[in-house]
Amino acid sequence: LSDNSLGRSLLMVSFGESHGEAVGVLIEGIPAGTEIDEKRINEWLARRKPSTSLASTKRKEDDTVEILSGVYRGKATGAPFVAIVRNKGYVDDFYSFAEEGWVRPGHADYPAYIKYKGFNDPRGGGRFSARITVGFVIAGAVAEEILKPLRIEVVGYTKSIGPVECPDFDIDNARKRYEFETRCPSAEHDALMQEEILKAKREGDSLGGTVRIITGKLPVGLGQPVFSSLDSELAKAYFSIPAVKGVEFGAGFRASKLRGSQNNDIYVLSNNEITTLTNNAGGILGGMTNGQPLIATIAFKPVSSIYRPQRTVNVKKIEEGILQLKGMHDACVIPRAVPIAEALTYFVFADMALRGGFINER
Amino acid sequence: LSDNSLGRSLLMVSFGESHGEAVGVLIEGIPAGTEIDEKRINEWLARRKPSTSLASTKRKEDDTVEILSGVYRGKATGAPFVAIVRNKGYVDDFYSFAEEGWVRPGHADYPAYIKYKGFNDPRGGGRFSARITVGFVIAGAVAEEILKPLRIEVVGYTKSIGPVECPDFDIDNARKRYEFETRCPSAEHDALMQEEILKAKREGDSLGGTVRIITGKLPVGLGQPVFSSLDSELAKAYFSIPAVKGVEFGAGFRASKLRGSQNNDIYVLSNNEITTLTNNAGGILGGMTNGQPLIATIAFKPVSSIYRPQRTVNVKKIEEGILQLKGMHDACVIPRAVPIAEALTYFVFADMALRGGFINER
Amino acid sequence: LSDNSLGRSLLMVSFGESHGEAVGVLIEGIPAGTEIDEKRINEWLARRKPSTSLASTKRKEDDTVEILSGVYRGKATGAPFVAIVRNKGYVDDFYSFAEEGWVRPGHADYPAYIKYKGFNDPRGGGRFSARITVGFVIAGAVAEEILKPLRIEVVGYTKSIGPVECPDFDIDNARKRYEFETRCPSAEHDALMQEEILKAKREGDSLGGTVRIITGKLPVGLGQPVFSSLDSELAKAYFSIPAVKGVEFGAGFRASKLRGSQNNDIYVLSNNEITTLTNNAGGILGGMTNGQPLIATIAFKPVSSIYRPQRTVNVKKIEEGILQLKGMHDACVIPRAVPIAEALTYFVFADMALRGGFINER
Amino acid sequence: LSDNSLGRSLLMVSFGESHGEAVGVLIEGIPAGTEIDEKRINEWLARRKPSTSLASTKRKEDDTVEILSGVYRGKATGAPFVAIVRNKGYVDDFYSFAEEGWVRPGHADYPAYIKYKGFNDPRGGGRFSARITVGFVIAGAVAEEILKPLRIEVVGYTKSIGPVECPDFDIDNARKRYEFETRCPSAEHDALMQEEILKAKREGDSLGGTVRIITGKLPVGLGQPVFSSLDSELAKAYFSIPAVKGVEFGAGFRASKLRGSQNNDIYVLSNNEITTLTNNAGGILGGMTNGQPLIATIAFKPVSSIYRPQRTVNVKKIEEGILQLKGMHDACVIPRAVPIAEALTYFVFADMALRGGFINER
Repeated sequence: LSDNSLGRSLLMVSFGESHGEAVGVLIEGIPAGTEIDEKRINEWLARRKPSTSLASTKRKEDDTVEILSGVYRGKATGAPFVAIVRNKGYVDDFYSFAEEGWVRPGHADYPAYIKYKGFNDPRGGGRFSARITVGFVIAGAVAEEILKPLRIEVVGYTKSIGPVECPDFDIDNARKRYEFETRCPSAEHDALMQEEILKAKREGDSLGGTVRIITGKLPVGLGQPVFSSLDSELAKAYFSIPAVKGVEFGAGFRASKLRGSQNNDIYVLSNNEITTLTNNAGGILGGMTNGQPLIATIAFKPVSSIYRPQRTVNVKKIEEGILQLKGMHDACVIPRAVPIAEALTYFVFADMALRGGFINER
Repeated sequence: LSDNSLGRSLLMVSFGESHGEAVGVLIEGIPAGTEIDEKRINEWLARRKPSTSLASTKRKEDDTVEILSGVYRGKATGAPFVAIVRNKGYVDDFYSFAEEGWVRPGHADYPAYIKYKGFNDPRGGGRFSARITVGFVIAGAVAEEILKPLRIEVVGYTKSIGPVECPDFDIDNARKRYEFETRCPSAEHDALMQEEILKAKREGDSLGGTVRIITGKLPVGLGQPVFSSLDSELAKAYFSIPAVKGVEFGAGFRASKLRGSQNNDIYVLSNNEITTLTNNAGGILGGMTNGQPLIATIAFKPVSSIYRPQRTVNVKKIEEGILQLKGMHDACVIPRAVPIAEALTYFVFADMALRGGFINER
Repeated sequence: LSDNSLGRSLLMVSFGESHGEAVGVLIEGIPAGTEIDEKRINEWLARRKPSTSLASTKRKEDDTVEILSGVYRGKATGAPFVAIVRNKGYVDDFYSFAEEGWVRPGHADYPAYIKYKGFNDPRGGGRFSARITVGFVIAGAVAEEILKPLRIEVVGYTKSIGPVECPDFDIDNARKRYEFETRCPSAEHDALMQEEILKAKREGDSLGGTVRIITGKLPVGLGQPVFSSLDSELAKAYFSIPAVKGVEFGAGFRASKLRGSQNNDIYVLSNNEITTLTNNAGGILGGMTNGQPLIATIAFKPVSSIYRPQRTVNVKKIEEGILQLKGMHDACVIPRAVPIAEALTYFVFADMALRGGFINER
Repeated sequence: LSDNSLGRSLLMVSFGESHGEAVGVLIEGIPAGTEIDEKRINEWLARRKPSTSLASTKRKEDDTVEILSGVYRGKATGAPFVAIVRNKGYVDDFYSFAEEGWVRPGHADYPAYIKYKGFNDPRGGGRFSARITVGFVIAGAVAEEILKPLRIEVVGYTKSIGPVECPDFDIDNARKRYEFETRCPSAEHDALMQEEILKAKREGDSLGGTVRIITGKLPVGLGQPVFSSLDSELAKAYFSIPAVKGVEFGAGFRASKLRGSQNNDIYVLSNNEITTLTNNAGGILGGMTNGQPLIATIAFKPVSSIYRPQRTVNVKKIEEGILQLKGMHDACVIPRAVPIAEALTYFVFADMALRGGFINER
C-alpha cells in the first residue's frame, strides 16, 4: 500500500537504517489475542545472526527486540504492533568513501544518491543494508503465530552456494537446517559449502547462491488472483530482500523446456483426498495453492561489497578511481538469507489467509 | 491495492471473464491531457492475437476497444479510464466438463472451485483465462503514452520455445520482433521454433518457453524501495500472467554461481556520463534503475490445456477419470505473451515514474 | 485506496461522466455466492430518478443497469463486478458556456478547469455531476445484499428542505419514505416541502436541506479505529456526494453545547442485554458501533445551477460577465439524495463488516 | 490504506497506547531533503499540553519527541520516518474498574471490549485515549514543513465552549490564539470560557465545544475527487479525533437553509485575479480548493469521563452498578484540540499537495 509496506489484511511497514537509531517494523492486522512471545521473536532474530566460525560479517548483531505498542499481557491487542531493534556495534568510519561520493559497484549507492538527491543516509548502506531485514524477521515470527490454526510450516534451506548444490529435500529432511552453519541440511554439502565460502573469503571475494523454500501440504485456495496471486505476492516479497535476482516456483525455468504432457501434475485420489502425482507447479495453480507443498527457489547474487580493489566512479566529482573497501562484509549471505526468506513466506501466507477468510479477523 | 489491481499512482483494476460479457480494465492516475488513441490501442491488441499460420487457438479474437469513460476529445481527462473489449466467437459447449466437476491438470480449475465455493465462472476458465490479459495490453498502450516524455522504450522477444533458444539481442536488433510469427527476431530461430510448435500441435501437446524484456538506457532512480522496488513490482506483475513460473533480472539465476568480482558491474565514465562495463544487474540495483537497460527473463510453463487424454479427478463426485479436452487451445502461448509482458513492463514503469515524481502528475 | 475508490475489503471505484458513454462502478470484494439481482438494482436506481410532479430536472433518467463482469447465474463469482448505466436523454448544447470558459458560481467548474488544465470533460459537469451517484446507488444495492446475514437495515429520509423541518422519526415510522415525493415520511411536512420547492422553482432559484440516516439496532464493534472509524468512513463517503457541506452523528453540533452529564448515554440492562437510555452518540463510540441505532445527519447546500442570471468570470478570457443557465437542473436534490446516502451507508457498513470479520469473506 | 493510516502520497500510521511504552507515528512519503527540526516538533507538542491554570488533566505530559528513523543530519532521507514519545507520569491504579469490566458511559470501553474480545489494552483507554493524538501532532509538524513551498498556513481557534461562542475571526486576528489559555483569540471570550470550564470542573462535569479551522488564500485545485475530495479527507481525519461528532465546511448546516441565489459565491476579478465576493463554500467546490480560505468547523462532545457518579453496566458480569471515576480527566479538551485539528489539516493538505503534483516528490 506504500513503498515500504507489504501485505494488506496483514500489513507490515519496514523502517530504519543500518547505522541509524534502530531498525524495525510496524504491523497492522494481527488478530486480537494472538500470542506475541518476545523470546520466540529473539530466537528468530538469532537465526539471522552471522555465523561465528564462517565467512560472515564481524559486526556483532546481538539483536534483542523491543516492543513499543500493540501488545498487552503477551497478547496482540488488535492495535498496530511496533517493534524495534537498536543498532549497535557498527563503525561509521568505514563509510567515509560514501560521504566523499565513491559508489560501490553492484550496490545501491549510485541510484540511491541520484534518487534521493544526496539526502539518503549512506552510513552502512542506510536503507539498502541487509540490516533492515531484522524487521522482516520480526514480522515472520508474528505471522508464524497467526498461522498456527492452519498448521502451516515453512522451511527454507540453502540449496546452493557458488558452484556447490545439494539435492532436493522434503520438509522432514530439511527441518534440521539450523543445525548446520550454512543452513544446508546435509553434512556433506554443508562441509563443501563452508569450504567454498572460506576460500572466497581468503581471496577477498564473495559468493552467491540459492535458497529453497518448502512447506508441507497446504490448505487449498490461498492466494488472491489476479494481481495478488500467491506467486505474485511471494515474488514481490522475495525481490525486496537485498541481492535477490531470480525467483521461481516448482519446476520454474525448467518447466519452460517441458511439454504440457510432462509438466501437468496429474490429479489422483489418495484416501479419497485429491492429490497430485508430481509437483511441478510447486503447489501453485492460477495463483492459488492447490494443496500440494509450496516449492520456491530464490537466487541471490554474490555480495557486492568485496575487499578486492575495484574500479569505480565518484558521483560528486564525476571522476574515475579505485575503491578499496574496509569494514565488515559477509563473503556469503545465503545462510543468513534462509530465515529472512522463511519470514517473508510466513508473512505472505498470513496475509493471504486473512484476506481469504481462512482465519477470521474478528 | 486490491486483489485485482496493480500499481498505485497509476492504478489498473483488471476485470472480466473469458466467456462473460466483456474483459476490460479500469485505470486511475492517467495525467490529464495524455493522448488516448483508440487506433494505437487496437494495434496493441492486434499483437496479442493468435497467429493464423501457427499453433495457436482458433478462437477469433478480433478485439476492438470500447472506451467508456475518462477520455474527452482524444485526451485523458484525469478521471478514471475504463475500456472494454466485448467477448465473442467462443463456444461454451466445450466446457461442459467443467460444469460436471472435472478439473484440468495444471489449470486453476481445482483451487478456484474450492476457493470460490463453486461460484466462479468456469466457462473458458473464467477469470483464469489468458483472455483477461486483453486488459493488461490496453493498460500497456496507455502507459507507453504516459512515458513518452521520458523516452522509455520497452521491447520483448521470444527467447526460447521448448528446447529452441535464440541468442541475446539488444534493443536495436530486437525491435523487429513483430515481423516474425514467433516474435523471435531471428529468421533462423523463428523457423526452428515454428517447427517445434507445429510438431507439438500435431501430437496434441504443448510447449513452454521464455520471454526476454529489454529496454534502452533508462533514467536513474526508477523504483520505490524497499517493497515497491522495481524488481518487486515487475515480478509481481509478471507472475500475474497465466503460466509464468519464473522471473529473473540480469544474470539472474546464473549470478548465484558467480563471485562478486565477476558479477559486479564496474562503473566507468563515458563522455563524462556514468555507465557500467557489463550489465549483470539487468539495470536494477537496490530496487532502482541504475541507468543501464533493463533485462528481465520470464519463464512460462507449457499450456496446461492439451488434447491428449489425461487422468484427473472430479471435484464434485470425488472420483477419478479420464479427461479429453475439446475446444480451442494454443499449443504455445509464448508469441502472444510478448506484447503482454511488454504492456505490464510499460505499466510498472509508468507507475514508478509517477510515484517517483519523474512525471509531474499535476 | 485511490482517488476514486471507497472502501477496502469491499472496494468500489466510481467512473463515468455525465454526458460520456456511461456512468458506472467497479466493485471488488463481493463474497462469492452473493445474490446479484438486476431487478433489485433497477429498483434502487428508480428511487434516485427525478420526481415527475416536482421541481426536479426534466432529464429523463430511465436508468437500467448493464452488468459487465463478476456475476454468473445471478450470483457473485468473487471476481470484480463492473456495472454501467448508459447515458442518454441529455443535451450538450446547454453547455456551450463551459466550452467558452464561463464558470458557474458554486459549481466545480473553476477549480476543475485549473486542476485538470482544461482537459476535464465539461459537458453536464462531467465528473462533478450528481449523475455519477448512479454508481454509488448500484454499489449500495450490492452492499445491502452482502449485509443480509447481519440483518442491517438502513433508512434515510428528508429531514428538512429549506426552512421546513420535520420531527425525528424512528426506523419504523421512516420506512415508508418512498411513498412521499419529497422522501419525508410525514404527509404534512411532505406537502409543505413540495410547496417550498415549487416556489423556489418558479423563482428560478434552488433549495438546500438535510437528510437523516437511521438504522435499527446494530451489531457491536463495526468500525475500524482509529482512521477507519465508522464515523470517519461514513463522513468521507457522505462528503463525496455533490453539495454536501456538513455531517454530524447523534446529537452532533448540539452535543458541543451539552455537559458530559447530559450527553453521556447511560448503560442499562434490558432483558439482560446491554442498551442505553439515550442515543446522543448516534450509535457510535470510539469509532465503533455500540449496538444502538446509527443516527447521521447530512447537510446539503442548495443546488448551485440556478436559472437566475448571475455575475461570474470567464477563466479563459479572464473577464467578468453575466451567466444565464439553460438546461435541466433540479430546484432541490434532497429527495434524490436520500437513496444515495442510504447506498453509501450500506456500502460503508458492508466494508466494515468484511474488514472486521463480521462476515466471513472465504 | 489501513485502519490506522491516513493519507496516501503522504501516509501516516498511528500507533501506541495511553499507558503503553510509547505513542508515535510512522510517516512515509516525506520528500527527501525536507527539514526535520526536533525543536519545532517539540514546540508543536507543547501546544497540546494541558493548561496548568485551567481545568485540564493533571497528568504531566512533558512530551519530547524521539526520532527513530528517516532523518539524517536534520533532513528527511526519503525513507520512513518514525518518531515516538515515551509515556510517563500516568497511574494505572485508576483503571482497575476497566479490568473489572465496568464501562464508562460515552467512552469506547464497551464496543472496544466486544470488538477486541477483551484483548484491547484498557489502561487509560488504551488506543482510544486522546493521548494517541501526540502522533497526529508530530505528523502535523512534519506536514507544515513539507507545505512551506506553497506558503500554506493553517490556524485553528476555539470557536465555542459550552454556551460561550466567539465571533468569526480571519487568519490575521486568529493567529495569536496560543496566547490565550482557551485558544480563543479574544480576551473577552477567553475569560468567559475559562469561567465556564472552571465551573464545570467544580461540579465534576465536563464541557464540549467547537474548533474553527481557517487558512489564508490557497492554491486552486487541492483535493482529489471524488472520494478523496478535500472535504472527504479532512472530515475523515477530523472524525478520527476522539469526541468529534460533527464537521462542516463554510456555511455548513446553515447552507441547507439558504437558497442558491444566496449561497452561491459570486466570482469577480480583483487585480485580474479570480476571487469570490463571499465564502459560503469555505474554500471548497467539488471537493477541490477554489483559492479562497478554508473554513471548517468541528464539533466536540463533552468529555465522557466525568467525576460525577454514573449508572452503568459491567460487561464481564452483565450487571448494573454505579461508576465513580478517579484519575486525571480534562473538564474540557477544546483548547488542546486546536493544535490537533491544525496538525491533521496540515497533514491532509500535504498529502493532497503531493498527490496532485503541487510539490514534486522526486
